Amino acid sequence: MRIALDAMGGDDAPGVNVDGAVAAAQANPDLQVTLVGDQPQLETLLDATGFSSPQITVHAADGFVGMDEKPTDALRKKPQSSIAVCWQLMANREVDAVVSAGNTGGVVAAGLRTRLFLSGVKRPGIAVVLPTRRGRAVLMDVGANPAARAEHLYQYAWMGSIFAREMLGVETPSVGLMNIGSEEGKGVDLVREAHGLIAGSSLSNHYIGNVEGRGLYTGDADVIICEGFVGNVVLKVSEGMAAMMMDMISREVMDCLDAEKPNAAQAFRTIGKRYEYNEIGGAPLLGIDGICLICHGSSDARSIANALRGATTLRDRHVNTHIVESLANGCPTPG
Amino acid sequence: MRIALDAMGGDDAPGVNVDGAVAAAQANPDLQVTLVGDQPQLETLLDATGFSSPQITVHAADGFVGMDEKPTDALRKKPQSSIAVCWQLMANREVDAVVSAGNTGGVVAAGLRTRLFLSGVKRPGIAVVLPTRRGRAVLMDVGANPAARAEHLYQYAWMGSIFAREMLGVETPSVGLMNIGSEEGKGVDLVREAHGLIAGSSLSNHYIGNVEGRGLYTGDADVIICEGFVGNVVLKVSEGMAAMMMDMISREVMDCLDAEKPNAAQAFRTIGKRYEYNEIGGAPLLGIDGICLICHGSSDARSIANALRGATTLRDRHVNTHIVESLANGCPTPG
Repeated sequence: MRIALDAMGGDDAPGVNVDGAVAAAQANPDLQVTLVGDQPQLETLLDATGFSSPQITVHAADGFVGMDEKPTDALRKKPQSSIAVCWQLMANREVDAVVSAGNTGGVVAAGLRTRLFLSGVKRPGIAVVLPTRRGRAVLMDVGANPAARAEHLYQYAWMGSIFAREMLGVETPSVGLMNIGSEEGKGVDLVREAHGLIAGSSLSNHYIGNVEGRGLYTGDADVIICEGFVGNVVLKVSEGMAAMMMDMISREVMDCLDAEKPNAAQAFRTIGKRYEYNEIGGAPLLGIDGICLICHGSSDARSIANALRGATTLRDRHVNTHIVESLANGCPTPG
Repeated sequence: MRIALDAMGGDDAPGVNVDGAVAAAQANPDLQVTLVGDQPQLETLLDATGFSSPQITVHAADGFVGMDEKPTDALRKKPQSSIAVCWQLMANREVDAVVSAGNTGGVVAAGLRTRLFLSGVKRPGIAVVLPTRRGRAVLMDVGANPAARAEHLYQYAWMGSIFAREMLGVETPSVGLMNIGSEEGKGVDLVREAHGLIAGSSLSNHYIGNVEGRGLYTGDADVIICEGFVGNVVLKVSEGMAAMMMDMISREVMDCLDAEKPNAAQAFRTIGKRYEYNEIGGAPLLGIDGICLICHGSSDARSIANALRGATTLRDRHVNTHIVESLANGCPTPG
C-alpha cells in the first residue's frame, strides 16, 4: 500500500505527520509512505526520528494551502503545493491513497480537479462517523458538494451504505434522509426528489425515509444523507456544542465535588478522549478512484497513523469495488 | 394584552395549557387569555383549577393539527382547528398574540396563509435563543422558510438584531451569516448573495461576515442568520446531541463516584433544567403583524406561562415597530 501524506497539512504540521508516518510504517511493513512537502525540512525531521527505511520517502512540493486560505485561489497561486502534488501522484498511479490533515476545501478542490472519479460516480462526497445513542452513524456529505443535485444524494445513499457495511461492520445499514420533518413530502425540492430516487431503488428495503436533525444522535439510521452545506454545518455545530458542553458540565460537576474529584476528572478525560479519538483516523472522500482520507486539522501523530492504517483498511475491504458494482449493476441491495 | 392560546397544541395538551394560562393570568392582571380548543373539555379543566375570572375565556374550535400530521393536509381537512382559529382571532384583531406548543409546521402554515405580515416584510422567520460559551445567541430562521431567498436572509439579519437588542439586552448585536467557511466568497449562491446585501447595508458596522457551524456555540456572533432548512436541522441536531451528552456523561461520571454521588446528581439536574428552561418560553415567528410565540411540544405549564409573559414583553419592547421602522427607513443601524 503506497500512500502520499500531505506532510504540510494540519495545525501541527509537519512534525505530527512525520511522527505518524513512522508509527504507521513500523506497525505495518507493507506500508509505503511518501511524505509530500518541504524536502529539507521533512528530511531533517525524518532523520531526527531515527527511523531509516525505504518505507518512508520524501517528495518535494512547493508551498502548501494554509488552513485559512481560500482553496481555489491558493491552488492557482501554488500549483505545486503539497496537496496538489499528492493528488498528482495518485493521478499518475504512483500512490494508491492520499491522506491530509490540511485545509479540507483544499484537499477536495485539488482532488476534484483531477477528475479521478470512480466509474459511474457523479460527484464524490465526504463521509464522517459520529457517535450516537445506539452506537455510530455515517453522515454524508459533510462539505465536498454544497450544491448537490438529487442524483448525488442518491449515490451518497449507496456510498454511505457500503462504507457503513465494510468499515463499521453493519450488515444491512439503514439509510435516512436528513429533512425538516418526518412525513413524506416534507422539505425542499432537492430532498423530495432524492427521496423519490432512493425509495424507488433497491435500497428501499433499508431506507427509513426522512430523519429529522434529532434523529442523527438518537441513532435513527446507520447512514444519514444530506447535501454538503447542511452536513458541514451539522458537523461543525456538533463539534462546537460537544466542546462547550464538556467544558461546562465538567466545570460545574467538579465544583460540587471534594475528595472524589480525581475520579470524576478521570471520567471526563476518558469521555473527552473518546470524542477526539477516531478509529478510522479521518473522513473518506468517497467516489474517488483511489483513496482519500481527510483528517481533522488538529490531528496528532496517533490520528495520522490511524488514518494511514484506515486507508489500508478501505483498500482491503474493497470499498471502491463495491461502490462501482452497486452503481453499475442496477444497484443491488447491500449486504 | 389579549392572547389566543392554542389550548390543544403540545404533547401534554390541553392540561398544561390551561394551568399555564391560569398561572400567567394570576401573575399579570392585565393579561387576557383566550383558550382555543374543545370547549367542554377546556371549561371542565378551567373549572377544576378553581380560577374564575373574566381574564380567561374559552373559544370553541373543531379539532387540532396533530404533532405528526402534515400541516397543509390537516389545515385543509380541519379549517376550524385550534391553531387556525387562533390566527383568525388575530387577523380579526380580537387578540394581539398567538401562543402555541403545537405542530410548528401547522402554526407557521396557518399563520402564513393569513398574510398578516408587517409592512415591508417579505417572509416571516422563526428566531430561537441558544446558550453559547459567551452567553446567548439568536439563530434565525429555524424552519419557517426552508426555501429562503437572499433578501429574506437580509431581513432576518435586521429582525434578529432587533430581537437580540430588545429581548436579550445586547446593545449593538453582532451579526454573522452561517456558512461552510469563513473566507469571503465561500458557500452557495444564496449565502453569497445574502452576504452582499448585509455587507452593503447599514448593518455592516455590526456584521462580522461568515460564521462556521462551530461559531454558533463558541458565541462568535450575537445573531446568526441561515435559511430555514439549515436552521431547523441545526436546532434539532443540537437538541439531540445535548440530550445524548447529558445522559452519557452523567451515567459515566456517576458510576465512578461513591459518597459524593448526590452532589453530582444535583449538579446534573441543575444543568439539565437550565437547558430545558427557556426564559422567553418560546420562539417568536418574527415579521408577523401581531405576536406569535411557538413553544416546544414538550412544554409544561411553566413554559406556557413564560411564553404568555414573553408575548407581553415582545409587545412592551415594541419589537414590531422597530422592525417596520428599520426596514422602511433605509435600515438605520440598530442601537
